[in-house]
Amino acid sequence: MDVVVQNICRADRSAADDFAEYSVATVHEAQARTGLLAARIKPIYVGAHISGTAVTVSVPPADNWMIHVAVEQCQEGDVLVVAPTSPSCAGYFGELLATALMARGVRGLVIDAGCRDVAELARMGFPVWSRCVSATGTVKETLGSVNVPLVCAGQWIEPGDVIIADDDGVVVVARRKAAEVLKASKLRKEKEAVTRKRYQAGELSLDVHGMRDRLARKGLTYVDAASKD
Amino acid sequence: MDVVVQNICRADRSAADDFAEYSVATVHEAQARTGLLAARIKPIYVGAHISGTAVTVSVPPADNWMIHVAVEQCQEGDVLVVAPTSPSCAGYFGELLATALMARGVRGLVIDAGCRDVAELARMGFPVWSRCVSATGTVKETLGSVNVPLVCAGQWIEPGDVIIADDDGVVVVARRKAAEVLKASKLRKEKEAVTRKRYQAGELSLDVHGMRDRLARKGLTYVDAASKD
Amino acid sequence: MDVVVQNICRADRSAADDFAEYSVATVHEAQARTGLLAARIKPIYVGAHISGTAVTVSVPPADNWMIHVAVEQCQEGDVLVVAPTSPSCAGYFGELLATALMARGVRGLVIDAGCRDVAELARMGFPVWSRCVSATGTVKETLGSVNVPLVCAGQWIEPGDVIIADDDGVVVVARRKAAEVLKASKLRKEKEAVTRKRYQAGELSLDVHGMRDRLARKGLTYVDAASKD
Amino acid sequence: MDVVVQNICRADRSAADDFAEYSVATVHEAQARTGLLAARIKPIYVGAHISGTAVTVSVPPADNWMIHVAVEQCQEGDVLVVAPTSPSCAGYFGELLATALMARGVRGLVIDAGCRDVAELARMGFPVWSRCVSATGTVKETLGSVNVPLVCAGQWIEPGDVIIADDDGVVVVARRKAAEVLKASKLRKEKEAVTRKRYQAGELSLDVHGMRDRLARKGLTYVDAASKD
Amino acid sequence: MDVVVQNICRADRSAADDFAEYSVATVHEAQARTGLLAARIKPIYVGAHISGTAVTVSVPPADNWMIHVAVEQCQEGDVLVVAPTSPSCAGYFGELLATALMARGVRGLVIDAGCRDVAELARMGFPVWSRCVSATGTVKETLGSVNVPLVCAGQWIEPGDVIIADDDGVVVVARRKAAEVLKASKLRKEKEAVTRKRYQAGELSLDVHGMRDRLARKGLTYVDAASKD
Amino acid sequence: MDVVVQNICRADRSAADDFAEYSVATVHEAQARTGLLAARIKPIYVGAHISGTAVTVSVPPADNWMIHVAVEQCQEGDVLVVAPTSPSCAGYFGELLATALMARGVRGLVIDAGCRDVAELARMGFPVWSRCVSATGTVKETLGSVNVPLVCAGQWIEPGDVIIADDDGVVVVARRKAAEVLKASKLRKEKEAVTRKRYQAGELSLDVHGMRDRLARKGLTYVDAASKD
Repeated sequence: MDVVVQNICRADRSAADDFAEYSVATVHEAQARTGLLAARIKPIYVGAHISGTAVTVSVPPADNWMIHVAVEQCQEGDVLVVAPTSPSCAGYFGELLATALMARGVRGLVIDAGCRDVAELARMGFPVWSRCVSATGTVKETLGSVNVPLVCAGQWIEPGDVIIADDDGVVVVARRKAAEVLKASKLRKEKEAVTRKRYQAGELSLDVHGMRDRLARKGLTYVDAASKD
Repeated sequence: MDVVVQNICRADRSAADDFAEYSVATVHEAQARTGLLAARIKPIYVGAHISGTAVTVSVPPADNWMIHVAVEQCQEGDVLVVAPTSPSCAGYFGELLATALMARGVRGLVIDAGCRDVAELARMGFPVWSRCVSATGTVKETLGSVNVPLVCAGQWIEPGDVIIADDDGVVVVARRKAAEVLKASKLRKEKEAVTRKRYQAGELSLDVHGMRDRLARKGLTYVDAASKD
Repeated sequence: MDVVVQNICRADRSAADDFAEYSVATVHEAQARTGLLAARIKPIYVGAHISGTAVTVSVPPADNWMIHVAVEQCQEGDVLVVAPTSPSCAGYFGELLATALMARGVRGLVIDAGCRDVAELARMGFPVWSRCVSATGTVKETLGSVNVPLVCAGQWIEPGDVIIADDDGVVVVARRKAAEVLKASKLRKEKEAVTRKRYQAGELSLDVHGMRDRLARKGLTYVDAASKD
Repeated sequence: MDVVVQNICRADRSAADDFAEYSVATVHEAQARTGLLAARIKPIYVGAHISGTAVTVSVPPADNWMIHVAVEQCQEGDVLVVAPTSPSCAGYFGELLATALMARGVRGLVIDAGCRDVAELARMGFPVWSRCVSATGTVKETLGSVNVPLVCAGQWIEPGDVIIADDDGVVVVARRKAAEVLKASKLRKEKEAVTRKRYQAGELSLDVHGMRDRLARKGLTYVDAASKD
Repeated sequence: MDVVVQNICRADRSAADDFAEYSVATVHEAQARTGLLAARIKPIYVGAHISGTAVTVSVPPADNWMIHVAVEQCQEGDVLVVAPTSPSCAGYFGELLATALMARGVRGLVIDAGCRDVAELARMGFPVWSRCVSATGTVKETLGSVNVPLVCAGQWIEPGDVIIADDDGVVVVARRKAAEVLKASKLRKEKEAVTRKRYQAGELSLDVHGMRDRLARKGLTYVDAASKD
Repeated sequence: MDVVVQNICRADRSAADDFAEYSVATVHEAQARTGLLAARIKPIYVGAHISGTAVTVSVPPADNWMIHVAVEQCQEGDVLVVAPTSPSCAGYFGELLATALMARGVRGLVIDAGCRDVAELARMGFPVWSRCVSATGTVKETLGSVNVPLVCAGQWIEPGDVIIADDDGVVVVARRKAAEVLKASKLRKEKEAVTRKRYQAGELSLDVHGMRDRLARKGLTYVDAASKD
């Protein structure tokens, strides 16, 4: 039942790395508004923006043993993704585990549970997106699994999928769709750059995107404040 | 039913601008502890402190179409105030809309719903006070209204009212009371400056505000720790 | 019923001060995972790390009168600990009270209720750990008690106990156990330093802590991704 | 500032009474999806369904004095509506106040705060819709106002407006629109009765409401499970 | 992108039906503590206990159009499972849709969003497990999908899986594992019946399950209250 | 560290039993508004009202082993009180443990964590006040303590204290104060009976409790609706 899956197939390295140029919002839009983790997953410090390949860990409530097991399965460019089998805000993760992960080139942690040592993690520059911050310790008594597909914060994540995380939250891109979504993200970003320039020049989205007709057909009415009474 | 009210009457410009010298807590006290939006409305980055005149937008859940409509109604010195007709944490607003609003001189956004692109918004210096941060996109399908009176985060807000926002939250001052509340805020701030000096010098509020008698009458008793057992 | 206890017995000054070298997580572990306040108590700004002796205040909901009373009972090296008798998120505390406390050498505030003026408190460098940020004012009508034992955010705290607070949260150490827990914290920190070095060198916790045998006995199985289908 | 407004103008008695035949959902739809109080307001027992005219009370946090004042302003067919000026879950209301209100013919209470004695209130048949159930007592120290317009659970309510409440929640109908909304509610209910019969007979809403074309135009595709791989 | 998958493969009818004899807790244990939906999904009335085969619906926030589409895909013995693509507490479902589903033999609804008409649904005997109760209406503007795999309240659910729901919550059993989990549930229930008899006779679990040795080895100490001081 | 304290001193049996005639609200008031557990602790079914002597259990997160240990320490008239050392909503308790407790005459359970089998518990008539309902199972790996003083839902509870619980929540009375608080509860109930009669007869609390003068002195003003504009 409790397994560690080794030698998983990861998304294309170069694609996984390139996603770091795109915001979570952009990638989420680029894949038709799918893949966004629940908003309860927040960064422990502002300004981090990473992408990488998922190593997944299914953990029991308040027991971080399997995170120790997972370290060995990580390699350069990975992002650790941890989900408890039932809700827990215990502090599964702190700076010692971060030290171990940094030594292997892991880029960050996404955990639907608690994290501690946040001041030290910020100093080290190891970003974490977590459900809560709590100094509560965990035990090492019950097994779980590493590199199995799981649901983390409402999203289905498979080992090797791409994870992108920034100040807005976290999004997952399926391994097999990485190239396609990367391309769509690039297109979206380019298109937004054009829009941004027009907005900066004072143009209105009503005109840039031609919304006026449809608004009128739906029945939107313009009235003057003075004429209201 | 769905209207855009144009040419609203705004609070006196100079008064609206001057409120930025007073904290939300001060203004809230100065108008007899009224007008404070619910504490769930938080700034997306620390350190912003603005005041301005409200342009209000009533939006359907997870639909940001009317914000696009509202941009055209904004002018220099306004603050956009957005309230959904039923609770939503979708990301109604991001840096593109902020770009459009900045081009018109809008000072910030207060939204009882979600916001995204928070890292970019911080870089741009466009402050937002929101209920949540979420990259979730919205649709453009259903109408709403612009510049109608509405309830935002528990407070009744009319177009043209003054909005003050800082790290503590957001407070609204009714357009017609702006001058009076501004004056009261000024008086309160001056009074606090005197109190602050006395506190800094080591005086106690018990003495500065003469509380000892009333405390004694209410029955407060001082005992020595040593004599307790 | 409502008392102010004077001349309380405080934890040893030097021990109380030395705790500031240890994180909340370390102290919590060092005293067998006890004493941690509920995670809802968060710092109003990042980067503060204090320790000190508790002056406790039991306050009615939305009434901060007793905090004014408590100031007089504080001395250099204290931390004010405030708990309402029923839940409240009102803004009991702001920069004026902080000014009064700083004048007496108080190091910070822990409050299971609301706090305001957070921007100014950050500028002053007076750290607060609170349940909420809210500009809502409070009244001065009903008595409470100072320096009585109380429950704050789920922990029993007695006057004179040691309070340690950092970005992870707040932990309390009983006055009589201060020396013992300080020693245990020191030992733990030293032990962690050794572990950290080994992790930095790329060693795995599975080996450093000899976990492999026990994992195998519990039935953990390693499989190869390729062999799974 | 703190006033009791007497002899308010109430919605037409007969209209206010007739609303009890319509569910909250029906009335909410009948007035274009407006007027619904926040879903946090829940009935303390199941099965109550009332309508009546609002007597409003603005109360300080954890202080129920003004509810005592409001009793005198109530008459047969009223519903008491209570909103605190800042969030509170204290138990403002129990069976003694309910006894006093029943003696005056009041039909129920809507309160964006706490309520207690819920077992006894159920036995008496005095329905309450509240934010929380809590035995916490309140004080009688600070004034508030009776029969002023206020925001309760996110909705603007004026004295004399119609309140309808059932197991789904609470909706308000503006006094001047009572007749019009009552008529729309009746029409909606009749229309739903026809729809219900067709659904009971096995007809699909896709056909009853002619949705198939629009779905197809939007691009909805039907595929067979067998053909998916 | 937006599809309706027809003629899905359902779990064995007889197995799906027999699960109604086992509680959610029993089934959850019988499949190694997996499959439990988040505890936020609660029954709208007490006493319902159902099992059936899942027809899944992925819906946009505050838009219930696809539920209407899904009705046609339902047959005798199904349970409708609805998950919004981003969090929403709108009232997607009421008694009219329940009427349509009952006409097709559907046994209940599981929805990670809001539900309304709860009094009428109780009268009809159509059970719903929902995240919230809210009379808020929804629109019919945006497509979604029917009978696609999805995450509902934290669990991966595929069309045709078995859903069991009672007063404790909701659990999903994968279609292919239905027979095996049913058997394990039966065994667990039988075993519990034996345990229950022994407990009723006054035996202790410490003895029935032979826990005393392991407790002692872990270091549990028995002391007498009198000897504590 | 982990102990089971045997032969605890319980509150006077007769006093502990007599408290069941008084509501939680009454007892809370009778002991000067102290002792009320947090409102998050709710009954799993309506209508239960118990009192008894506390047997306390401190449990690790998601581990119910010590509840099994505690059963042996219970006797006729006890109420089990369980608090996790860090927050958990796992289902620590179900009908098998309830069977064991009923065999020993235990009257109910108060737990600041999760409970399951709520339908069966209602059928058995074993009342539980819990933080959540969840079918999630727990492990039996880590020790805790029985009959040690602890904080449960924000209140300090010692073994042998009196627990009173009804539909409003739970209150604790210190063992040594049981007789005194019982007497005060009786007096309060008698006084309320008199007040109730006067209210039923249509008298107002303004007159019964002589509030009019103090209201006037505070500045309450009565105005007529007609004269407001």
